[in-house]
Amino acid sequence: MPNIDAFVPPPRLLMGPGPISCDPRVLRAMSHQLIGQFDPSMTHCMNETMGLYRGVFRTENRWTFLVDSTARGGIEAALVSLLKPGDRVLVPVFGRFGFLLKEIAERCDAEVHCIEIEWGRVAEPEQIAQAIDRVKPQLVALVQGDTSTTMCQPLAEIGRLCREKGVLTYCDATASIGGNTFLTDEWDISAVSAGLQKCLGGPSGIAPITLNEEAVARIDRRRHIEAGIRASHHVDAAGERIRSNYFDLAMIMDYWGEERLNHHTEATSMLFAARECARIWLEEGAEKAIARHRQNGEAMAAGLQAMGLKLFGDQHYRMNNVVGVYIPEGADGEKIRAQLLEDFAIEIGTSFGPLHGRIWRIGTMGYNARRDAVLQTLACLEQVLKLNGVKIQTGDAVPAALDSLGPPGAPSPSSASGPQARQKHRRQE
Amino acid sequence: MPNIDAFVPPPRLLMGPGPISCDPRVLRAMSHQLIGQFDPSMTHCMNETMGLYRGVFRTENRWTFLVDSTARGGIEAALVSLLKPGDRVLVPVFGRFGFLLKEIAERCDAEVHCIEIEWGRVAEPEQIAQAIDRVKPQLVALVQGDTSTTMCQPLAEIGRLCREKGVLTYCDATASIGGNTFLTDEWDISAVSAGLQKCLGGPSGIAPITLNEEAVARIDRRRHIEAGIRASHHVDAAGERIRSNYFDLAMIMDYWGEERLNHHTEATSMLFAARECARIWLEEGAEKAIARHRQNGEAMAAGLQAMGLKLFGDQHYRMNNVVGVYIPEGADGEKIRAQLLEDFAIEIGTSFGPLHGRIWRIGTMGYNARRDAVLQTLACLEQVLKLNGVKIQTGDAVPAALDSLGPPGAPSPSSASGPQARQKHRRQE
Repeated sequence: MPNIDAFVPPPRLLMGPGPISCDPRVLRAMSHQLIGQFDPSMTHCMNETMGLYRGVFRTENRWTFLVDSTARGGIEAALVSLLKPGDRVLVPVFGRFGFLLKEIAERCDAEVHCIEIEWGRVAEPEQIAQAIDRVKPQLVALVQGDTSTTMCQPLAEIGRLCREKGVLTYCDATASIGGNTFLTDEWDISAVSAGLQKCLGGPSGIAPITLNEEAVARIDRRRHIEAGIRASHHVDAAGERIRSNYFDLAMIMDYWGEERLNHHTEATSMLFAARECARIWLEEGAEKAIARHRQNGEAMAAGLQAMGLKLFGDQHYRMNNVVGVYIPEGADGEKIRAQLLEDFAIEIGTSFGPLHGRIWRIGTMGYNARRDAVLQTLACLEQVLKLNGVKIQTGDAVPAALDSLGPPGAPSPSSASGPQARQKHRRQE
Repeated sequence: MPNIDAFVPPPRLLMGPGPISCDPRVLRAMSHQLIGQFDPSMTHCMNETMGLYRGVFRTENRWTFLVDSTARGGIEAALVSLLKPGDRVLVPVFGRFGFLLKEIAERCDAEVHCIEIEWGRVAEPEQIAQAIDRVKPQLVALVQGDTSTTMCQPLAEIGRLCREKGVLTYCDATASIGGNTFLTDEWDISAVSAGLQKCLGGPSGIAPITLNEEAVARIDRRRHIEAGIRASHHVDAAGERIRSNYFDLAMIMDYWGEERLNHHTEATSMLFAARECARIWLEEGAEKAIARHRQNGEAMAAGLQAMGLKLFGDQHYRMNNVVGVYIPEGADGEKIRAQLLEDFAIEIGTSFGPLHGRIWRIGTMGYNARRDAVLQTLACLEQVLKLNGVKIQTGDAVPAALDSLGPPGAPSPSSASGPQARQKHRRQE
């Protein structure tokens, strides 16, 4: 007989690359009682949520909605709906999640062409322009922030050049959105998907997505209504049917649209969570929320450096919300992580692939992009490193972070809102 | 600027075919703070949840776990992982969800053969045996309880005959499990998927699944590890790669298994909900929980009949948790449903396809398989029918339901645990 006591999770401060601790307001939203799938209050909530995510994605796209899966499912929904078998897709890969896009596109039987970039760097627009001319893809698919390397890919030029060359763009903004600037319309990105569990302060389990008119038109050419709910006025499109029923964005749009054609049963509690995540973020304001991520990420980086630890990757392109730090020579990275978790209830992240065993990844995102979370983490990590006999500079980490943060409640410097500004800010230090 | 007030759902008693009101203990479970994806307390919780769902599915299957999507995604995960393009699958269709299995299997490019059964009836084992001999399918895929018709397909003989003929069976038990007997091992069903939002009293958004050894072996022949996380000891299987990354059950098993290979980021709040749903159900006990569904479903049916309303479909095979009732002659079914929702905050269901506009569907399931929920619904429906000038027998519905229920706290008759027993029980009335 299995244990049938209720599960009560232990206290944790989640300072890894995500998921992170949930905003308590989002936890409260999930504890609301359910309402029916087609209740006017439900469809109203869905419509409001579409509006809120237009704010998050900085877009006017009508088709801004949720896919009922984790962020990975949002990626698959975008790719399986945008790519027919045989379509060419160009994927700049600068970390593990670039490989994931490649892998998912391959399973769509697309012809996948990659540009592999050294981990710790980002793609140059010129590389992408040349590859587009060579490959002539239907789609460029890339990640904005790849937590595996902590790098944040600049997108403004890439969006523009894809538009000029008539190529659609898809971006996975799961790890970056909310904590780094993302301007769907201004950058001309055709399709973007995300998740709640990073800078938006929610749990994994539902994937916001936005599609511009070109992306919708491409999907509409493959629109097929499910047999069980087809009415006489429904006409299937000429294009081949999308291979997935669950991730068929045409059908999901029909469910979120005026016709409310039945598809899945909306994951109501996750919808409530998603709505609250967007609401909280917009209430704080895009600029302030991103500045908070930058400020706390900077403070964490400053503290780690003050301990004498070395940061990973090109800091000019680092995501605001996660920093990679080399595991010091001779230290047992996993033992230290385990002790920090077991004795101090603080989680930091390990790494994948070529960085496994070489760096830790420490997040400051969503609800945990907070002064106290940064200071607790630095104070406790310092103790654990000392307990493990790792030679570090002691006593300087917290003061350096405090110096970087400024006095409590201080506004973040208004000039510091991008990598350029960050460098400038550093020079001023 | 969109509305950025927090969303507070209106009070609702959900008495449709699901989703239904959530057990408050499940809502509380979802309000717990998150823990990390590979935290020992998280993997322990995942292992416990596997054990709890073995209890729900009545199986010893090692591979009993969760897919992070709604129940529809669980179906797709099973079919896309079990069916290669060109495989033959036999689908008995006796309602809308049979058509859904057909549709999903078609998108897998399987060769789909259907047995269409009149809505309101179920398939006979002899029909299936003959079709297996004719089609020689790799898989028989069918629904246990199809809420579109309220019918519950008997499975014991079908499981046995498929085993004898060497054919795997997949069953969608979303709408039935928890409220109707389901014996995975005893009935020899190879793969079963479900959802929380019906008799298990939880929200939509995560799909429990169980696979027996034959199903796992079939999936293992197509096991391919994702490039980004492949280690030197990993060897891909010879079979063709599963078309979906997200629904690749081999990879999801590697995530739930000892190796804990990274796949999606587990939807932690939904995991907590799923664990609590199973815990509550097992705490009540399988027999008692199913008897409660039968008892409250019977009481609802008795009340509706006492109003002079006619029930839909072969009552011998009706699911315990939902009853179809013909909309009375001359009544505006949608207007009555809307008034019941708006004035009394009680939701009952409409119907799909050939039954649209002809029947309502009224559920008594999960947390709402309750005496007060049945009585409130009957009392209020009677008022709304009267207000709309529908000719019914007034004053008899609630007494009939009370008579069927027996005194408060009375145990359900121990002899009445299946359709046969139900008929006997009715004859005694």
